[in-house]
Amino acid sequence: MHTETTATSSRPIETDTVVIGAGAVGMFQVFQLGLQGLHCHVVDALPHLGGQCSELYPDKPIYDIPGIKACTGQELIERLREQMEPFVPTLHLGQQVQTLEQQDDGRWLLATSTGTQLLAKAVVIAAGVGSFVPKTLKIDGIEALIDRNVHYHPANLATLTLQGQHVLVHGGDELAVQAALDTLACTPASVTLIHRRDVFTAPEALLAQLQIYKDTGRIRVVAAQPQSLLTTDDQLSSVEIVLPDGSSESLPVQQWLVFQGISPKLGPVAQWGLELVKKQLPVDTSTFVTEAPGIYAVGDINIYPGKRKLLLCGFHEATLAGFSIAEYLTDKPVLLQYTTTSTRLHALLGVVHTEK
Amino acid sequence: MHTETTATSSRPIETDTVVIGAGAVGMFQVFQLGLQGLHCHVVDALPHLGGQCSELYPDKPIYDIPGIKACTGQELIERLREQMEPFVPTLHLGQQVQTLEQQDDGRWLLATSTGTQLLAKAVVIAAGVGSFVPKTLKIDGIEALIDRNVHYHPANLATLTLQGQHVLVHGGDELAVQAALDTLACTPASVTLIHRRDVFTAPEALLAQLQIYKDTGRIRVVAAQPQSLLTTDDQLSSVEIVLPDGSSESLPVQQWLVFQGISPKLGPVAQWGLELVKKQLPVDTSTFVTEAPGIYAVGDINIYPGKRKLLLCGFHEATLAGFSIAEYLTDKPVLLQYTTTSTRLHALLGVVHTEK
Ligand SMILES: Cc1cc2nc3c(=O)[nH]c(=O)nc-3n(C[C@H](O)[C@H](O)[C@H](O)COP(=O)(O)OP(=O)(O)OC[C@H]3O[C@@H](n4cnc5c(N)ncnc54)[C@H](O)[C@@H]3O)c2cc1C
Ligand SMILES: Cc1cc2nc3c(=O)[nH]c(=O)nc-3n(C[C@H](O)[C@H](O)[C@H](O)COP(=O)(O)OP(=O)(O)OC[C@H]3O[C@@H](n4cnc5c(N)ncnc54)[C@H](O)[C@@H]3O)c2cc1C
Repeated sequence: MHTETTATSSRPIETDTVVIGAGAVGMFQVFQLGLQGLHCHVVDALPHLGGQCSELYPDKPIYDIPGIKACTGQELIERLREQMEPFVPTLHLGQQVQTLEQQDDGRWLLATSTGTQLLAKAVVIAAGVGSFVPKTLKIDGIEALIDRNVHYHPANLATLTLQGQHVLVHGGDELAVQAALDTLACTPASVTLIHRRDVFTAPEALLAQLQIYKDTGRIRVVAAQPQSLLTTDDQLSSVEIVLPDGSSESLPVQQWLVFQGISPKLGPVAQWGLELVKKQLPVDTSTFVTEAPGIYAVGDINIYPGKRKLLLCGFHEATLAGFSIAEYLTDKPVLLQYTTTSTRLHALLGVVHTEK
Repeated sequence: MHTETTATSSRPIETDTVVIGAGAVGMFQVFQLGLQGLHCHVVDALPHLGGQCSELYPDKPIYDIPGIKACTGQELIERLREQMEPFVPTLHLGQQVQTLEQQDDGRWLLATSTGTQLLAKAVVIAAGVGSFVPKTLKIDGIEALIDRNVHYHPANLATLTLQGQHVLVHGGDELAVQAALDTLACTPASVTLIHRRDVFTAPEALLAQLQIYKDTGRIRVVAAQPQSLLTTDDQLSSVEIVLPDGSSESLPVQQWLVFQGISPKLGPVAQWGLELVKKQLPVDTSTFVTEAPGIYAVGDINIYPGKRKLLLCGFHEATLAGFSIAEYLTDKPVLLQYTTTSTRLHALLGVVHTEK
């Protein structure tokens, strides 16, 4: 698999197909488009493949995938990754598709949050229940500080300037505890870890480490909620927190790392001018095309009579969408071939024939 | 799994659901009905599960089942068998459903070739490309001798009277060669193995055994085609065969075992008064119900706009049919539950919760 890291490019990448969303259904879409001989670009807001399966229930077994008696969410994603591997999609991860606009020549131009532009003949929206984005805080004045003083689920602390700064880490899970510990390595002026309750959900070893730094005074741990913020010269200078007894306290803070969890938000999909019914895209069940020619929708994001938000339904939808896109791009009927018997499909899949 | 062996019963078995066809899709239908809390009776003309996958390509790998990079036809059937096991369907194998008629109370009465009668509220036709039946011979007068002197793909030689008889075994594959060898154990008057060509497709070891019996004169092997038959007192007495050089010969024959392969024939499905389009049953894609209330069709036997005869499409169809049947039987909307999280589904699946 090829991951595109050079995010910003002035000229759009031209391609046949783009899949928006690298959840289970988007991944199987790549496989089905591959069987049709089509290469894909795939964009996801998350920094990794897998959507809901990876993000919401990686360790829980699924029992209703046909032919798989039980496999966890993450195992399913690993299996789908292996299956799509022969088709080497180009992955654009950690970026949200923000705009989708039809061009005069009928093609669709997509632009992502990191500046990637893609110009495609056909686009499959496999956006699930929305893009997985960090939960944000509703505090006056916070918007303007994002990426400068306020960081939602930063993937890599090394890219932030924490040295000599008062750092506030905000959250109660493993990621938050880990970030508080990691911050120490950046020689900050101070580290405060706040969480609404006095209990953290993290592995024992990590909690033990936290206890040591707490005892030695290197990390201050406070049960509290942030309430307001103050800036000096447009930079964050302090955060007012409320303690469980209702009293409040002002903390000096220059860098605020927020770990309030990641959850799906429909987000930009609603702004692309496509009809939405119950926050989903209506499709034609013979092709899974939306009302817009060249725009398909598969998986949890679509709706049609009888729709059930299940993985195996999404896989069926991606299959028929694959046939329909191939017909749309070639303007010819595409005949069914079986993967068991077709030498053309074997060549695409990289199946090697050994002499009998 | 429970296999019903008492085939003939004067009173029909009353049940909620019957699935006609135990191919891959019929099997997954049992699983999906099981998730809806419904028990199934399953009928198939073949003596075993698996339909096309088992019968036509047991050893060929399939590459397009989601989450399964490769598995042979037979492996897939084994996986589906395991998956449906918690729901203990009642299997009626080796019998063809011949009639399907609606009763005054709206239920459907099915009768099979071996006399089993089932009275069901909902019936799922998962009949694929038809029921797998042995290829028959077109020879004047042969019809009247079937099951008496002529046996198409007999499953068990022990049920036939071969002792002291002139036996003709007719076919070129492993089953035919094996039957010729097995016949010897029944002390027949003579055994002749005919096949249109002088080449047999069977494992080396079996061919070596055949050669020994051929050399010692216990089995006569002839490249020939049957042309006509003679009877004496309504019993088969001889078969006229044509040799490759065009000459003919009359063989004394009392028992004729025919192995010309098993292939699917649409058969009775066409006689049930349901509309057929291109030999398939049109369905509504939101429910997979046919034009007849209570009669559903899934897998290769159905047709709708965009239909592709693929396994994974049949699995999706069986899933939506499952929901629709549950709603039809309870007259209430059925809400989606996930197998990962629903304790109700876990109880049905027999998933045991262990303490953390
Ligand atoms: C707890 C739980 C248990 C479940 N159990 C089962 C089960 O047992 N069986 C079953 O069949 N189903 C189950 N499901 C449902 C199943 O997980 C979903 O049907 C499936 O994940 C849908 O896949 P998808 O690819 O359509 O969407 P998702 O998995 O939601 O993936 C969509 C992806 O698109 C990305 N995206 C969206 N918008 C954008 C954008 N603008 N830019 C970039 N990226 C974007 C998102 O970040 C996300 O990664 C369960 C769901 C949950 C929550
Ligand atoms: C060589 C080959 C390769 C294939 N490769 C692939 C592939 O790679 N991927 C893919 O997705 N699909 C593939 N397919 C297609 C796939 O096999 C079919 O879509 C699938 O088997 C359909 O399953 P089914 O259960 O609907 O029907 P079947 O498997 O045909 O089962 C129907 C069953 O119903 C029984 N039946 C019918 N009528 C009656 C009756 N009146 N009474 C009793 N029993 C009855 C039959 O005996 C049969 O067992 C392939 C097919 C072939 C032939």
